[in-house]
Amino acid sequence: MVQDKFDINLYLKERGKKVEEVLEIYFPKEKDYGERVISAAKYSVFAGGKRIRPILCLAGCEVVGGDWEKILFFAAGIECIHTYSLIHDDLPCMDDDDFRRGKPSCHKAFDEATAVLAGDGLQALAFQFFTHPDLVKKVNKTKLLKAIYIISKAIGLEGMVGGQMADLLMEGKKGNARILKWIHLNKTVRLIEASIISGAILGGAKSKEIKALSVFGKNLGFAFQIVDDLLDLVGDEKKLGKKIYSDIKKQKLTYPALFGIEKTRELAEKHTQKAISALKIFGENAQPLKSIAEFVLYRVN
Amino acid sequence: MVQDKFDINLYLKERGKKVEEVLEIYFPKEKDYGERVISAAKYSVFAGGKRIRPILCLAGCEVVGGDWEKILFFAAGIECIHTYSLIHDDLPCMDDDDFRRGKPSCHKAFDEATAVLAGDGLQALAFQFFTHPDLVKKVNKTKLLKAIYIISKAIGLEGMVGGQMADLLMEGKKGNARILKWIHLNKTVRLIEASIISGAILGGAKSKEIKALSVFGKNLGFAFQIVDDLLDLVGDEKKLGKKIYSDIKKQKLTYPALFGIEKTRELAEKHTQKAISALKIFGENAQPLKSIAEFVLYRVN
Repeated sequence: MVQDKFDINLYLKERGKKVEEVLEIYFPKEKDYGERVISAAKYSVFAGGKRIRPILCLAGCEVVGGDWEKILFFAAGIECIHTYSLIHDDLPCMDDDDFRRGKPSCHKAFDEATAVLAGDGLQALAFQFFTHPDLVKKVNKTKLLKAIYIISKAIGLEGMVGGQMADLLMEGKKGNARILKWIHLNKTVRLIEASIISGAILGGAKSKEIKALSVFGKNLGFAFQIVDDLLDLVGDEKKLGKKIYSDIKKQKLTYPALFGIEKTRELAEKHTQKAISALKIFGENAQPLKSIAEFVLYRVN
Repeated sequence: MVQDKFDINLYLKERGKKVEEVLEIYFPKEKDYGERVISAAKYSVFAGGKRIRPILCLAGCEVVGGDWEKILFFAAGIECIHTYSLIHDDLPCMDDDDFRRGKPSCHKAFDEATAVLAGDGLQALAFQFFTHPDLVKKVNKTKLLKAIYIISKAIGLEGMVGGQMADLLMEGKKGNARILKWIHLNKTVRLIEASIISGAILGGAKSKEIKALSVFGKNLGFAFQIVDDLLDLVGDEKKLGKKIYSDIKKQKLTYPALFGIEKTRELAEKHTQKAISALKIFGENAQPLKSIAEFVLYRVN
C-alpha cells in the first residue's frame, strides 16, 4: 500500500518544528519588571508538547488545498490557548496536578499567582498571533475573523471553560454517559474540532468540506479524550510525563469508570473509524489527517 | 460657558446602558452542566461597574467622526476583559480581596476554581464579541483586526498581565518612581489607552488623531490609577464598594506611599490637564472625552 510510506512521526516532527519556530521567534522577550510571568509562560509553552492542535490546524488548511505555511501564526496561537488551559487546569484549586510533561507544573515551578497570570497572558498572546500583521496581510480578512470567532466560541463559557467547570463539579459524583459526553465534548473536543475547521476556513474550504472536517474533528476529539482516560489507567508514567491513576484518585467521571477498559477501547476505535470515514471526500489528500487519527488511537498500545 | 451644559453623569449613564444592553442580550445563557461558570461570569459583569473603558472606546470612535453605535459589540468585549482582570486580581493567590463593588468578590460568592474559570471564559467572550458576525458586517475588517491586535497586546504578557505580575512582586519591597510608573503603565494605562485607540481606529481615525488620543489615553490612564491609589486612603468605603487602606495592608507600591497625598493629588491633576490639552485638535467634539477626564479626577473629592 502506498499509504504505508507516509511517515506520521516525521510529519508530526516537521510540522511541530515549524510551529515552534514561530513561537520562539515571536514569543515576548523576558525583560522588564514583569519578566517572571513571561518566563513562566515560556516554561510551559516549551515543555515538549506534541503540538497536535496546531498541526491539525495546518492539516485542515492543507487538506482543502490551502497553503499551510501562510497560517503558521494562527497555528501558533492555538498552541498558546492549549498551553494556557493546561496551566490553569493544573492549579491547586482545579485539578491540582504537580507534574506535566515530566516536569513540575507551572505553579510548582513558579507559584500560583504567576501560573494564573501566565495562563491569562497566553490566552491574550493567542489572539495577538491570530491578528498579527504578518498573518493579516497573507490571508483573507473575512475568513480570518470567522476563524477567530470559531476558536473563541470553542474555548469560552459555552465551550472549553464550561467543560472544565462541569468536569470539576462531577468529581466524586455519580455521572452517566450523557454528562460524560457533554464534558468531553466541551472540555476537549471543541478546541480540537475548531483547530481543524479554522485551518480549513483559512485554506478556503467549501461548505461540504467544512461539514466533513467537523465530523472528522468531533470523532477525533472524542477518540483523543477517551484514549487520554485510558492512558491514566494503562499508560507508562515515563512516557506520559505525569502520574497515572490520577483520575481515579480524584474520582473523575471517565469512560473506563463508566464502561470498563474493554468497552472504552472499543469506543476509541469506533470514533477513530468514524473520523477516518469522514475523510473520504478528500481522497489521497486525507493521508496526514488519517495518520494523525491513527496516531492518536495507537498511543494507547 | 457652553461646556457647562454637557451632563457627564447623564452621558455615562446613557452610554453605559447601551453597552449593558449588548452584554445582556448576547451573554451566554445559564444552561447545561457548566452553567455555574456562566452564572459566576454574569455575577461579576453585572455587578454595577461604571463601564468607563467601553464608554471610552465609544467616545474614541465618536470624537473622530465615527458611528459609535456600530461598535457596541467591541465596547462590550472590552468590558468583559476588564471584568476578567478584576476577578483574577481578587483571587486569594493575587490581591486576595473579599469585596468588589460592595459585593463579595467572585471567588467569595462562588469559589476559587469557578472564579479562575469565569475570568478565563470572560477573556474568551471578549474576543467572541470582537469578532461577532453582527460587528464584522458593519465595520472595516482591516481596521477591526488592527483594533483586536492592539487590545490583545495591551492586555498581554507585555501589558496588563505583566503589570499585575510586577505589582505582586513589588509588594513589601522598596520601590521607586520608575518601577511604579512602569507598573501603572502596564497594569492600568495600556488597556485604557487601547480602549480609546481601538474605538478611534474603528471610527476611521487619521494618524494624527490616533497620536493625540494616545497622549490623551496615557495621561487619563495615569490620572485614573493615581486617583485609585488616593481613594484607597481618602475614599468612602460605601461609595467605593470595597475596604480602604487595602494597599497599605498589602504594602503595595503606590503614588501616595512614594510621594505623599498632596504631591499625588498634584500629579493626578497634572496628568488630567495634559490629557485635556491633547484633545485640542478635536475642537468642540472633544467635550465627552474632556468631561470623562474631569470625572475621573474629581472622583477623589
